[in-house]
Amino acid sequence: MKLDRALDLMREVPDFPRPGVVFRDLTPVFADPDALRAVVDGLQGGIDPDTQVVAAIESRGFLLGAALGYGWGYGVVPLRKPGKLPAVAHRVSYALEYGEATLELPAEAVLPGQRVVVVDDVLATGGTAAAACELVEAAGGVVTGVSVVLEIPGLGGRERLGGRRVDALLAV
Amino acid sequence: MKLDRALDLMREVPDFPRPGVVFRDLTPVFADPDALRAVVDGLQGGIDPDTQVVAAIESRGFLLGAALGYGWGYGVVPLRKPGKLPAVAHRVSYALEYGEATLELPAEAVLPGQRVVVVDDVLATGGTAAAACELVEAAGGVVTGVSVVLEIPGLGGRERLGGRRVDALLAV
Repeated sequence: MKLDRALDLMREVPDFPRPGVVFRDLTPVFADPDALRAVVDGLQGGIDPDTQVVAAIESRGFLLGAALGYGWGYGVVPLRKPGKLPAVAHRVSYALEYGEATLELPAEAVLPGQRVVVVDDVLATGGTAAAACELVEAAGGVVTGVSVVLEIPGLGGRERLGGRRVDALLAV
Repeated sequence: MKLDRALDLMREVPDFPRPGVVFRDLTPVFADPDALRAVVDGLQGGIDPDTQVVAAIESRGFLLGAALGYGWGYGVVPLRKPGKLPAVAHRVSYALEYGEATLELPAEAVLPGQRVVVVDDVLATGGTAAAACELVEAAGGVVTGVSVVLEIPGLGGRERLGGRRVDALLAV
């Protein structure tokens, strides 16, 4: 399946999770094996070839990151919400539009000098992606880029990532 | 990498998430591309060949399920905790050792007659896996089995799944 046809399967859901927000639902893409393959291979096309590890952001980033890892030979490191990991190497809290969130990097998962791509479904304000990059770098890893399916450029995410490479399959 | 060597990478963490529980941490398996491949291919070896869809349980099941889906051509349907899905087809609440949990199936993700394997990292008491099977069947899907990396047979999970096929790479 061509990438644009796969991305056409995304569903727009107005007013979720809050009034005024249009949620882009990737469920139909994941549910279609050909669309899943097209999207994951599309992400792979934007990843720096020296990359060794995928840092996958909980939870939808897990789906994309694990498929990338299995398909293209990366190690997969899940970046998790608090309380899930038995051993935490580093922890970063960051501001959301409403409130605060925390992301944790597992112990002994990213080694110093490893080249790591951060993977998630959507890049919006960039707070989560910036926290993910911080975690990787706190462990001595080198962020080779941030790869997402969808970028919402109006929210300033790319700017918040301070010149790091950003690849998005689609911008809306 | 041989499967047994991949599984040897699992880390036992005593007293997590509660005193008296030994947590089996798959982080080192996911972080090693060869081990990830061995484990995912091991799971594939136990899946009924007529299966079309992987129902992946949030969150560690996402990692295994998406790798299976990408690698072996399944659609992937995430079974999610409450509040994450913009459109819910079915919802099941079930008892945990302490308290209650809820799992949701996205709308239009499992079609009537589709053959679905439920995937998670660990089968313990079986409450979550049984809820996942109920969700698939509520949508008219046919559960071809439950596939996990690790089964803890002493907790009765297999019995709770009422004769459904269960495949585990390791029992401890």
